Amino acid sequence: MLKCYKLGSKSHCTQNRHSGSLLNAIFKTKIKMRKREEHDTIRAVSWEDGAVAMLDQRLLPARESYLRFETAQAVADAIRTMVVRGAPAIGIAAAYGVVLGAREAYRRYGGDWRGAIAPLLVALADARPTAINLKWAIERMTKRFERIEGDPEGVLLQAAQAIHREDIAANQQMGKLGAGLIARRVSVITHCNAGSLATGGYGTALGVIRSAYAAGKIEMVYVCETRPWLQGARLTAWELLRDGLPVTLIADSAAAYLMSRDQVAWVITGADRIAANGDVANKIGTLTHAITARHYGIGFMVAAPTSTIDMATPSGADIPIEQRSSRELLEYAGSAIAPDTANAYNPVFDVTPAGLIARLVTERGSVERPDEGKLRGLLGSG
Amino acid sequence: MLKCYKLGSKSHCTQNRHSGSLLNAIFKTKIKMRKREEHDTIRAVSWEDGAVAMLDQRLLPARESYLRFETAQAVADAIRTMVVRGAPAIGIAAAYGVVLGAREAYRRYGGDWRGAIAPLLVALADARPTAINLKWAIERMTKRFERIEGDPEGVLLQAAQAIHREDIAANQQMGKLGAGLIARRVSVITHCNAGSLATGGYGTALGVIRSAYAAGKIEMVYVCETRPWLQGARLTAWELLRDGLPVTLIADSAAAYLMSRDQVAWVITGADRIAANGDVANKIGTLTHAITARHYGIGFMVAAPTSTIDMATPSGADIPIEQRSSRELLEYAGSAIAPDTANAYNPVFDVTPAGLIARLVTERGSVERPDEGKLRGLLGSG
Repeated sequence: MLKCYKLGSKSHCTQNRHSGSLLNAIFKTKIKMRKREEHDTIRAVSWEDGAVAMLDQRLLPARESYLRFETAQAVADAIRTMVVRGAPAIGIAAAYGVVLGAREAYRRYGGDWRGAIAPLLVALADARPTAINLKWAIERMTKRFERIEGDPEGVLLQAAQAIHREDIAANQQMGKLGAGLIARRVSVITHCNAGSLATGGYGTALGVIRSAYAAGKIEMVYVCETRPWLQGARLTAWELLRDGLPVTLIADSAAAYLMSRDQVAWVITGADRIAANGDVANKIGTLTHAITARHYGIGFMVAAPTSTIDMATPSGADIPIEQRSSRELLEYAGSAIAPDTANAYNPVFDVTPAGLIARLVTERGSVERPDEGKLRGLLGSG
Repeated sequence: MLKCYKLGSKSHCTQNRHSGSLLNAIFKTKIKMRKREEHDTIRAVSWEDGAVAMLDQRLLPARESYLRFETAQAVADAIRTMVVRGAPAIGIAAAYGVVLGAREAYRRYGGDWRGAIAPLLVALADARPTAINLKWAIERMTKRFERIEGDPEGVLLQAAQAIHREDIAANQQMGKLGAGLIARRVSVITHCNAGSLATGGYGTALGVIRSAYAAGKIEMVYVCETRPWLQGARLTAWELLRDGLPVTLIADSAAAYLMSRDQVAWVITGADRIAANGDVANKIGTLTHAITARHYGIGFMVAAPTSTIDMATPSGADIPIEQRSSRELLEYAGSAIAPDTANAYNPVFDVTPAGLIARLVTERGSVERPDEGKLRGLLGSG
């Protein structure tokens, strides 16, 4: 049997004995997969030789540099300082962080590793407050703790890799479902980066856009630069250009102008957390696009895996909104872009009310204007 | 008699003989004016010793540097390259540019100066396409040409200085009217720079905010950074901090989030051109604020002198929207902030439909949701 998985920059294939014809069939499948993968070649997070490798997203697009992390605390710091960002990607990074934490704890404390790992789990969970995937992934990992006997590394690595693989599969499924909602060849707007860089691979919003592009439905992808961290300009433009998609960068504030001129049919974004009532926390600016899209009768689509749904948070008002340093607004690359004495307010997420979301696409199906019943339906359908 | 005028960085006062009591009364007035002027100390454009002095707004907030321009072409270039910007300020700069052009033409061609100046008038009028004040000011200057005998410099300088003085007076009047519309102490959002730096002095939107602040009605001014040129971060924050107003810088895309949390009562902006039907062209992003303000039931106020009203342009769709270099989005201060190969679309104005404008404030009065009849009323009331 041929097992082919791709995590990080290397492809690992192992091959067993098979009859020629079957092998040929499998190779054909593999070649097809490779072709599809040409449109999705980046892995923001991967497990490489006993450590977590992460593409340092702070340096893009100037430099493609992979860093190696060998402790849970280092992974938590990397999440906090945005070496890695994007709700699903930080969930996956945290899952691998739990593997590292368990290894450290087992090496130092043996059978007592479950107690010793606790502060590391807290450090990982607290690294960023808004995206729920971080908590979701850590919780899913800790559920495996109970049954483990002896060294936990192998079992937990399998669990983390399952989270990673499932995320990619979910994205591909969302891509298919989301692309199916786009009726004809159109231009779309996306905000922030909800792509391979923000996920296990393929992307949520960019997964939909990749699938729609493959189906000949994308004329142009207008990428909002996404102030202040410029995820759109630095990451989404880079990721889509690398895959050969048509990209035009715009200021965030130019999106409504494009809508007013009938130049776009859909706004497509990801999500950091979806509350039980269907409200969506996502990158600052998402709310603005949702309101202006509604004003112009343009579709507003959120693509997010069900791991982003948090039934324990009743509504958007209950989602903690991260505020980052005012320096992100006051400086760029060390140059002041505002007076030294200026105050700045830098909430990096906002909350879009469920009623403004024309379509929520998950790997388990899509719904119009999500609400508690529809979300329960999606979660129950897995 | 005491004549005190302030243009540029110097105060010029001349004093004639008067009886003690009258002089004292005049001095008291002067002291009062000075106090008010403490909140408005910058002049972006001024006539200084036979040339146009302009604060180089490209270098703010890092450096306060005044450049001197001695030819009409140099003034046109300064407008095009944004040494000076803001609809009323470029109108005033162009008026002084006409003085310089007439002087050049008269020195070279004597009585035939009116023919020789024509290409310079075109260069000035074409320096930026969207703001109408440029054309308005040039037209007003050329109307004086007919009656001039001999050297035109003196007469035209008086005409240009009248435009400049009237602009400041209009701003102070708008300040009073606009502040009167703010019922209680509130926080406001402003976009771009519609302040002293964008006008003859005092400002349009910032004139309203200055007057409201003086009346104790301003809790906080949230200043949108205004991508891509950062007029908010670089100019408005600098100008308001210099005058001691409370300023908080936000990303353009954070405005709707503030509105969603009941943190602001008004959005106040300037205008580059108002079409006959009341549609307003202003800095890219204004449309977004108008839509989101309407969504949240928040006041949207445009403050602009009647010189901004262009009855010859039927609607917003007829206003030419300037597109500037994609480099404004792709680079900052020479550093790439997006991949080299990215395309960018950089319209620097948008059009807000009249129906979204809760209040238009001019020096001749304010109207709700401007339309052709209301604009004619304002223009007729002068």
